[in-house]
Amino acid sequence: MATADRTRSFMKDVKRVIIKVGTAVVTRQDGRLALGRLGALCEQVKELNTLGYEVIMVTSGAVGVGRQRLKYRKLVNSSFADLQKPQMELDGKACAAVGQSGLMALYDMLFTQLDVSSSQLLVTDSDFENPNFRERLCETVESLLDLKVVPVFNENDAISTRKAPYEDSSGIFWDNDSLAGLLAIELKADLLVLLSDVDGLYSGPPSEPQSKLIHTYIKEKHHNEITFGDKSRVGRGGMTAKVKAAFVASNSGTPVVITSGFASQSIVRVLQGEKIGTLFHKDASSWEPSKDVSAREMAVSARECSRRLQNLSSDERKKILLDVADALEANEDLIRAENEADVVAAQDAGYEKSLVARLTLKPGKIPSLAKSIRTLANMEDPINQILKRTEVAEDLVLEKTSCPLGVLLIVFESRPDALVQIASLAIRSGNGLLLKGGKEAMRSNTILHKVITDALPDNIGKKLIGLVTSRDEIADLLKLDDVIDLVIPRGSNKLVSQIKASTKIPVLGHADGVCHVYVDKSADMDIAKRIVMDAKIDYPAACNAMETLLVHKDLIKSPGLDDILLSLKTEVAIYGGPIAHELLSIPKADSFHHEYSSLACTVEFVDDVQSAIDHIHLYGSGHTDCIITTDSKVAETFLRQVDSAAVFHNASTRFSDGARFGLGAEVGISTGRIHARGPVGVEGLLTTRWIMRGIGQVVNGDKDVAYTHKNLPLE
Amino acid sequence: MATADRTRSFMKDVKRVIIKVGTAVVTRQDGRLALGRLGALCEQVKELNTLGYEVIMVTSGAVGVGRQRLKYRKLVNSSFADLQKPQMELDGKACAAVGQSGLMALYDMLFTQLDVSSSQLLVTDSDFENPNFRERLCETVESLLDLKVVPVFNENDAISTRKAPYEDSSGIFWDNDSLAGLLAIELKADLLVLLSDVDGLYSGPPSEPQSKLIHTYIKEKHHNEITFGDKSRVGRGGMTAKVKAAFVASNSGTPVVITSGFASQSIVRVLQGEKIGTLFHKDASSWEPSKDVSAREMAVSARECSRRLQNLSSDERKKILLDVADALEANEDLIRAENEADVVAAQDAGYEKSLVARLTLKPGKIPSLAKSIRTLANMEDPINQILKRTEVAEDLVLEKTSCPLGVLLIVFESRPDALVQIASLAIRSGNGLLLKGGKEAMRSNTILHKVITDALPDNIGKKLIGLVTSRDEIADLLKLDDVIDLVIPRGSNKLVSQIKASTKIPVLGHADGVCHVYVDKSADMDIAKRIVMDAKIDYPAACNAMETLLVHKDLIKSPGLDDILLSLKTEVAIYGGPIAHELLSIPKADSFHHEYSSLACTVEFVDDVQSAIDHIHLYGSGHTDCIITTDSKVAETFLRQVDSAAVFHNASTRFSDGARFGLGAEVGISTGRIHARGPVGVEGLLTTRWIMRGIGQVVNGDKDVAYTHKNLPLE
Repeated sequence: MATADRTRSFMKDVKRVIIKVGTAVVTRQDGRLALGRLGALCEQVKELNTLGYEVIMVTSGAVGVGRQRLKYRKLVNSSFADLQKPQMELDGKACAAVGQSGLMALYDMLFTQLDVSSSQLLVTDSDFENPNFRERLCETVESLLDLKVVPVFNENDAISTRKAPYEDSSGIFWDNDSLAGLLAIELKADLLVLLSDVDGLYSGPPSEPQSKLIHTYIKEKHHNEITFGDKSRVGRGGMTAKVKAAFVASNSGTPVVITSGFASQSIVRVLQGEKIGTLFHKDASSWEPSKDVSAREMAVSARECSRRLQNLSSDERKKILLDVADALEANEDLIRAENEADVVAAQDAGYEKSLVARLTLKPGKIPSLAKSIRTLANMEDPINQILKRTEVAEDLVLEKTSCPLGVLLIVFESRPDALVQIASLAIRSGNGLLLKGGKEAMRSNTILHKVITDALPDNIGKKLIGLVTSRDEIADLLKLDDVIDLVIPRGSNKLVSQIKASTKIPVLGHADGVCHVYVDKSADMDIAKRIVMDAKIDYPAACNAMETLLVHKDLIKSPGLDDILLSLKTEVAIYGGPIAHELLSIPKADSFHHEYSSLACTVEFVDDVQSAIDHIHLYGSGHTDCIITTDSKVAETFLRQVDSAAVFHNASTRFSDGARFGLGAEVGISTGRIHARGPVGVEGLLTTRWIMRGIGQVVNGDKDVAYTHKNLPLE
Repeated sequence: MATADRTRSFMKDVKRVIIKVGTAVVTRQDGRLALGRLGALCEQVKELNTLGYEVIMVTSGAVGVGRQRLKYRKLVNSSFADLQKPQMELDGKACAAVGQSGLMALYDMLFTQLDVSSSQLLVTDSDFENPNFRERLCETVESLLDLKVVPVFNENDAISTRKAPYEDSSGIFWDNDSLAGLLAIELKADLLVLLSDVDGLYSGPPSEPQSKLIHTYIKEKHHNEITFGDKSRVGRGGMTAKVKAAFVASNSGTPVVITSGFASQSIVRVLQGEKIGTLFHKDASSWEPSKDVSAREMAVSARECSRRLQNLSSDERKKILLDVADALEANEDLIRAENEADVVAAQDAGYEKSLVARLTLKPGKIPSLAKSIRTLANMEDPINQILKRTEVAEDLVLEKTSCPLGVLLIVFESRPDALVQIASLAIRSGNGLLLKGGKEAMRSNTILHKVITDALPDNIGKKLIGLVTSRDEIADLLKLDDVIDLVIPRGSNKLVSQIKASTKIPVLGHADGVCHVYVDKSADMDIAKRIVMDAKIDYPAACNAMETLLVHKDLIKSPGLDDILLSLKTEVAIYGGPIAHELLSIPKADSFHHEYSSLACTVEFVDDVQSAIDHIHLYGSGHTDCIITTDSKVAETFLRQVDSAAVFHNASTRFSDGARFGLGAEVGISTGRIHARGPVGVEGLLTTRWIMRGIGQVVNGDKDVAYTHKNLPLE
């Protein structure tokens, strides 16, 4: 089990939670109350109350309310002469005292609107010196919580005997952060949430890009790493005060999360176990540090390992693949046992049959995977190839060479064999890899990952291939655009669409495959029938299966077309566009942009090849489209103009596939236009580097160099 | 002037604004008040009030407050037996009547916190039948606004004689939307803002992806296009009621914007002229429709034109470029006059000298641009090239061909010559183009765009190249990832960074160029001196200039190094890493990852070539790095391991440039690893298509086809 599970798994047992809302959260930059945030906060408290949590609040903000009131009061009391004088800044403590009742009235009003009862509890430092007070306070709070009333705490500034400045660590508490920490212990809270104006504790000032959010604070690891920025712009606390309070509370057994009071629903999300903010937990140091590896750290390690991998000779990389193949075969029994356990669990959990089928490593699968890895091992080394050589000037030679992309993230569903294929492709192409598989294949993926990485030599390092098993949501991985170079989703259209919609990392793949077959009036109708049937029926769920059959209008009611439709209808549900629906008396298709992925298709008539092309541009997905014709001029028009990744003449759309194209191992099929398009082989995992060798040439305003720009042979 | 300027330019004259807040905005899904949104709304009203606007509100939401109160009342009045019975749903009208005072008290309290006075105005339909009432109402509102009090209107449900259902268009008003429309006219508002739970009026149901937000409603254009979805989930109005009210008010002269009440600061942004929401304006129909072309429409048109361009013969595309070159020369006087006007304006506005220099088209620039276009015209056609031919099986031939990417967006600053270069590259490579230039070069860009597009033949269409001149923010353009294939920023590092951070469209370029020169112990120190000086001094602001000089530790205090440092110091400010700072007594560098872009650089000592490589990986930007050495083994280690776009041996980093590399026209220099890397020529604007020609082959489970996968010559 990875730590992320462990570090936040206690959240499901949290019942009593203290929420501390600081001045920076409830106050705007201009000193006025941030009513929008305050309202949203009360809505969250209402939600937690409804969900059965016991919510206790510690709030600041009285200063903002009080300043407002005092200003008005001064104005009312002023003579005209007074108003001429420069206005003195109002004393913060006076403001706080005056504002207390106003703030509480505001909370009361907001909560009342939400059907929540709240109560005010004003305390001073000295109160806590009295043990009777502590006992009484606990009883009172218990009673309130039993009645589902939200206690709202604040320091009783109006009657506090202490003088400003408040920073005075000799007291029992000295600001609302330390009050919250104290209450967490006194009231035996299960969690203390300290709301901040930043997302949590960073390794440095949050505004600097190299500062990273710390998800789980570990004293040994982070104590010397953190540099604090300036204090918060408002309020007494700032991050230092929060961290201090977090230490106190978490050491006494109440875990603490520092998180943003600006982000939507942040408290609810923390309680749902989402890995936002910074967690302080007394056991964090004992959690195995190796288990707290973040996806970011995994990506950085994978890149380091990949640089060493790239630096090996081609034969050394080949040997690694052969070792991996041997290791898979040697561990076949172990792998199949783990896979069997996944399969049984999936069946017990009532998963769909098709998922269980994809999950299962059938007998013979491991040897066949090993065989394909050996084929890959023997293929020409794709990296460090010289793609272009140019003599730039005398004794100045430029080479364009192939090299790995860097770090790939593969998100795959069910199929554990995908892990093996992708890992071996990554090794062959010198890339680092992060794997994120479905939880239904957890045991299979874990053993496969272990067998493969155990076969990696020490001079490369096992971290070349990271298996992300934590509860890190895919969404978090997809944010790592600075350390991951390419995402390859292997799974449903929905998975691909979701990934594309939520990342800035380039995605190699296709969301949908709305492939067309256009039968021209000049078509050989036997060929047309054969191809239409194959394109739809050979594997209807494939992305390269036909979804729409376009037919030249001259073929309406022709015996050839009737024959095709008759054959189709025996196996396929057909739907018509507006014209076909009328003429063929078939049900109307809802939309032309529709991927059935099953034994169903749309049929429509078009005027000519140009209309077919326009239709494909309007409704297609740019995957694979095909024309059936004997007229080579019409064929060339179609081949030239259809702007899709693959365009075929008299051949089934089902040929659109890396293996059938002869690309060897297939990375995926891309409908994107950048980097790689259509079926993509290992070249989709490569980029280039420019290498130049000279003898001391300089540019010097381009005055000295005689550029020749001569192409040289590649050797 | 483009329309966006015209359609929203009146905003700067708006003083009196009516804001209508519907039930869907102030109420949550569960029927309770959305206090967060309500608070944020009041904060916006405060801001507008401070900015001097006269704000009038029309609000719903009483039902939510009233239901809450009535529920409580019923509970208090209930006997135990009553509570056993199923609870009846409370009557909406009763709730509204009861809730009115509570809602107003809430507004009053929120506004009081913000230092704003508000007043309640309850009106009924029948009140408006009395002309005296209307007059009196106007006077009252004027007095309130003079005192900076915010009038808050609502229908006086409690005493209204009308019965539910309210939908009754015979009345003067029949819901709060129509009340707002009526008040806009009566109170002579300059703007009516109708807040909705969606972003504005869409061409169809907002949840469907093909529905597009309408920025400016034009009756002739949109009347038949729009299909309304279901009514809003709560409240009486829904979008139909809003549009009705918008028609009434805008026809009477008060422009109306329907915009989101959920989005942050939406009212303030509307008043700042930002193009959010849907504008209704009585003059909209007379605005030249061609001027209201959105960037999205421009991108779609550019793609259509590019498909036609791609379909021309190579000679035809060549002729277009020659025509463009001729047209530029023929219009040189006109172009220089417009450019002159931009330059004068920029000087008058006190722009920086360097900006004015970049803005200026110097004498001879136009002929030189024309010459480079003619060179481009004569280069080998980059598209429709066959890159690979494979015999997949007998009579089944697969070709990989080059083709245009599709639609490019170029964002450039100052330099009008960039427009010409990029436009000619786009034509040569068959791409569509959107150009977004700086406003300081507006006149130059407009004339250059006109001259170039006028030279395009009618069968292609002028819309191949769109000049985005509206006030559309770059941020809006960068959202069009479904219709734009590649963004190429031409300008400062800041521009590139900002663009990269804010779009999912692939970006070709580089944010920073922290280039290193490493001088090994085996270096020829004369070569080292020459290259170090050139790399830093030839053009210090260039991205390929040296920022960090790494030196092997054995060279410390050697005469060769002393000589280099002495020469450097005469022209360059040098800063040291921790070691060099100590040993050389030079100021300490703040960070190793720093691009000076000026006559300054960092110096540091490293242990050996491996330390140099590690340093470059840790602190570099992957742009261009160079080793100076006479030891070929050390050189190869460096060339092989440094993971940057360009890696040089004994040659100045300044050679890292498309022209010097012999790539012809340069698109940019990419530090990205996807698609293109390093200096990028026209191939960065290309993608590939797979074309397959068969004689009727089908896949049929791969049982029939004998795959040969034989490479064929490219012809």
